[in-house]
Amino acid sequence: MSDPTESTDDQRTAAPLKFLQTLSLDEVIELELGGRLSGAVCAYETWGKLNDDASNAVLVCHAISGDSHVARHDELDDPGWWDQLIGPGKAVDTDQFFVVCPNVLGGCRGTTGPSDIDPQSNPPRPYGASFPRITIGDMVEVQRRLADHLGIRRWRAVVGGSLGGHQAMMWATKFPQSTQSCIAIASSPRLTSQALGFDIIARNAIQTDPHFAEGQYYDRADRPDTGLAIARMLGHITYLSSQAMTQKFDGDRHDPREIVSDFEQRFSIGSYLAHQGQKFTTRFDANSYVTLSMAMDLMDLGDNRLQLMETFDDSECDFLLVSFSSDWLFTPEQSREIVNALTALNKSVTYAEITSDAGHDSFLIGSDIDQYGPLVGARLGERDDMAPKLSSVEESIIRLIPDRANVLDLGCGDGHLLAALKQRGHQRLVGVEVAQANLIRAARRGLDVIDYDLNNGLPAFIDNQFDVVVMSATLQAVANIAELFDEMLRVGRRVIVSFPNFAYRALREDYVKRGRSPRAPGEFNFEWYNTPNRRFPSIADVHDLCRQKNVRIDEAIYFDSTDDLRIDPNDDPNLNADTAILVLSR
Amino acid sequence: MSDPTESTDDQRTAAPLKFLQTLSLDEVIELELGGRLSGAVCAYETWGKLNDDASNAVLVCHAISGDSHVARHDELDDPGWWDQLIGPGKAVDTDQFFVVCPNVLGGCRGTTGPSDIDPQSNPPRPYGASFPRITIGDMVEVQRRLADHLGIRRWRAVVGGSLGGHQAMMWATKFPQSTQSCIAIASSPRLTSQALGFDIIARNAIQTDPHFAEGQYYDRADRPDTGLAIARMLGHITYLSSQAMTQKFDGDRHDPREIVSDFEQRFSIGSYLAHQGQKFTTRFDANSYVTLSMAMDLMDLGDNRLQLMETFDDSECDFLLVSFSSDWLFTPEQSREIVNALTALNKSVTYAEITSDAGHDSFLIGSDIDQYGPLVGARLGERDDMAPKLSSVEESIIRLIPDRANVLDLGCGDGHLLAALKQRGHQRLVGVEVAQANLIRAARRGLDVIDYDLNNGLPAFIDNQFDVVVMSATLQAVANIAELFDEMLRVGRRVIVSFPNFAYRALREDYVKRGRSPRAPGEFNFEWYNTPNRRFPSIADVHDLCRQKNVRIDEAIYFDSTDDLRIDPNDDPNLNADTAILVLSR
Repeated sequence: MSDPTESTDDQRTAAPLKFLQTLSLDEVIELELGGRLSGAVCAYETWGKLNDDASNAVLVCHAISGDSHVARHDELDDPGWWDQLIGPGKAVDTDQFFVVCPNVLGGCRGTTGPSDIDPQSNPPRPYGASFPRITIGDMVEVQRRLADHLGIRRWRAVVGGSLGGHQAMMWATKFPQSTQSCIAIASSPRLTSQALGFDIIARNAIQTDPHFAEGQYYDRADRPDTGLAIARMLGHITYLSSQAMTQKFDGDRHDPREIVSDFEQRFSIGSYLAHQGQKFTTRFDANSYVTLSMAMDLMDLGDNRLQLMETFDDSECDFLLVSFSSDWLFTPEQSREIVNALTALNKSVTYAEITSDAGHDSFLIGSDIDQYGPLVGARLGERDDMAPKLSSVEESIIRLIPDRANVLDLGCGDGHLLAALKQRGHQRLVGVEVAQANLIRAARRGLDVIDYDLNNGLPAFIDNQFDVVVMSATLQAVANIAELFDEMLRVGRRVIVSFPNFAYRALREDYVKRGRSPRAPGEFNFEWYNTPNRRFPSIADVHDLCRQKNVRIDEAIYFDSTDDLRIDPNDDPNLNADTAILVLSR
Repeated sequence: MSDPTESTDDQRTAAPLKFLQTLSLDEVIELELGGRLSGAVCAYETWGKLNDDASNAVLVCHAISGDSHVARHDELDDPGWWDQLIGPGKAVDTDQFFVVCPNVLGGCRGTTGPSDIDPQSNPPRPYGASFPRITIGDMVEVQRRLADHLGIRRWRAVVGGSLGGHQAMMWATKFPQSTQSCIAIASSPRLTSQALGFDIIARNAIQTDPHFAEGQYYDRADRPDTGLAIARMLGHITYLSSQAMTQKFDGDRHDPREIVSDFEQRFSIGSYLAHQGQKFTTRFDANSYVTLSMAMDLMDLGDNRLQLMETFDDSECDFLLVSFSSDWLFTPEQSREIVNALTALNKSVTYAEITSDAGHDSFLIGSDIDQYGPLVGARLGERDDMAPKLSSVEESIIRLIPDRANVLDLGCGDGHLLAALKQRGHQRLVGVEVAQANLIRAARRGLDVIDYDLNNGLPAFIDNQFDVVVMSATLQAVANIAELFDEMLRVGRRVIVSFPNFAYRALREDYVKRGRSPRAPGEFNFEWYNTPNRRFPSIADVHDLCRQKNVRIDEAIYFDSTDDLRIDPNDDPNLNADTAILVLSR
């Protein structure tokens, strides 16, 4: 167990002024909600070198309490908060890319925020609570000016986690041509009402602290540290999962660390919260916290797919979205809402839900970065060269697919079938896969893959979105087959399904002779008590189902793959074929 | 959608002094953590009449912000917070039972608490923050004295939800003979570290409020209302599920109610929290909130099964535990920890996890009370008279079970097999069932039933706990069969398993002739694409598995149930029997 007074967040406390650069923004910023900012500055750090055509620049956006120090600049430098993702040879390779990380507008780490002097004030005083209400769009506008200054017309990618993910998506929607890729980790279209509730309580704690003094506390002896600390404590609970907290604090629940604090320290978790809360007040400004959390709460890309489709309609980048199974602040379901809108728009998108116990903080944690890092690398062009090896059944499937057709592959595995189509020149190819290792392999072939359980139907896709929907050797693993047939035929004009035949001669013989749940080489080669298969259809069964559902069988190919033979359709394929390919339509 | 400024909690705001009675406790209370209380009082309400032998008294314990007004006394009376559960003809029938609900020690609704005058003080002043640190045990001690006063030596039941459930369990452990039943709804052995964290932040908000004045604010103009309101806001989020909040506040997220408040009201959820927070300060005392939440946080029945078994070892009551699927404050897993300890101790326990979206508040919500109310009624003796109808296979199973054997029935359905055993005089009978409607039916036969998915093994039970473990017509619906065989043989000295034979002649013929996934009347009479079955074992398959796992088959009975025939073991039962009963041991 790690020191319970420490957290991943501690990496965000570094104050690495050495590499900080500052750009003065000459032009007034007209803010989205009205009001304007003049004389603003943008503080930022960079890594690597911009290439001649300025095509290798990656913008990294930080979360609410983060800063521009996303990575070490050299061995003597303070640790960065995303060191494991960004650096020489890392997923975001600073030997290859020019990485830019600005401090966010409204914050307190160099870019203009409430603690800076209001140029309109006389006598001069900080903005305080009169800092105008800003939006994620305003943050991105400042970053756009930084891009202009650096000579970057189009980012190779904009990358961020949490509030940083919001900024990345805002780039994709506000400046549709400004980035080639949008990478949003642990983000959401808008906050849940629950997350909103926590933010509101945090702001209430700050703003009702008597030392808040209506936001003009900068020249006073006391600051609203109590309110800010309470806000931070609350934040910390939402960043962790309950499992992670149990693991971290239940072992010595009644044995708190001794720290100096006015806050309660009866329990281990209490001393942790007191420590984190107090420490935060030494590096963060209460007005900035209010400003940034309100900007986050006002972010609203849409409440349903239609709204989200409208939001992303113009964007011209490809997308990578990553969520974490135990993240209850920005949930996987919320990322899926965005993914569903993007797929419906035919945008290029890869999505993975990483299994992790660490909650929202997962995006900062080494072992989880190991999981999603390869997907980031893949989105930035890193490829594993694996020649796609196809079975003869798969080769037949490929031959059934018209040139240039756009194709959805359900249960795409490591993507070898789609990779073969890609080699053949198909443009729009999407895979669906639920096994994480396969998903990563497919992504690293340069394919779009979406993490999806087929038992939930195909809500990510709209009617007739694909020329061809393929489901190869996956039918037997799906429980809701009848619904999935409808879904495939809704989403694709043509459906190609291959499946193992449970009435194949060898299986029938095995069953009749042995009196055992039948087995044969291939998908049905499992013990009855541990097979992953959910369904055991024969060719005749599937024909029956098609008839019953008014599905037309346009073509049927039957194989005895043990002898690599085609079986004539008139030669009782339900007995003689171990595998069938059916081409279906309605 | 209901008014978003209202909540179930509003029912707890009634101040029904009319029916409030007060008992002066003459003897000093020696507190569990040291310290003593003299001159304490206990305020309470009662419903119904105590019978002559004082055997019909039910104690109801309230949650942190509740009070003694659990139900209406008459039509003109204010609503009670558990009206739907308690009253004439309700699950806790006040025509039949004498119901007592005291206000809790440390609270502010009549029973001694921090806002009362400290009799040791001179000049007299309220206890304030110097009110001694109390425990759930102390609360229960006060209630015990109330019982003495009322002439109640043994409660028919002690019932409570949340903190009230903690009190009910404390009765069962502190005074083992004092109650016949313990009914704990939405409770836990101790708080999760996450729940603890929220309580700590709430107390920090109260105690750092400058108007808290170290707890002596009673004679001042200002009270720590801001801190108390923030504590209450936080509580409210934890009482709801995220789904419930979405439903309640997402429709008009940007359209808050207009209320007078110093708290933020930018969002719909914000105005709700402000309203709830402020309203709470008009009826609750900050010192009481600190006192009660700390008592709850200090409650610790045990962190693991061994500790929990030690805690409950002496208790002599039966138990009903109920949890709610979306309750993330006191989770179903936590209730299961208690259930697992109780079953291991051979205590009589029924447990249900009610499927609900309403979060922790479910225990107060009408539609959820409709779900668990029948279980409460059953625990109090209400029975549905259903004669157990047995199939001939089940009659054979019964004949295989020795008299007086204690029996675990896995997948017990509506409990008809166990009910037949009960009629035969068996004492210790436990059912496991995952379908809620069946579970309630079984409970209302007066059986102990536990809500459990067999795919997770049998962690509730210890080695050799039962003479016989029965699994009747359930094998085919379980995925993890190999593990479950081990588990059954660990938990029972003898295992009786009945299952449909997938190699039965009619199925083989159907398969071979039709070339379809085989069907026959009985458990295998489903379409291949929608069968709920997970496994398709033949008799020979199960024999093989037993051999492989070194399981002895002590007896085997085979049936052709279509003709109601016994099949001779030498007459190829794997072909001729559609059902098998195997008696297994190791």
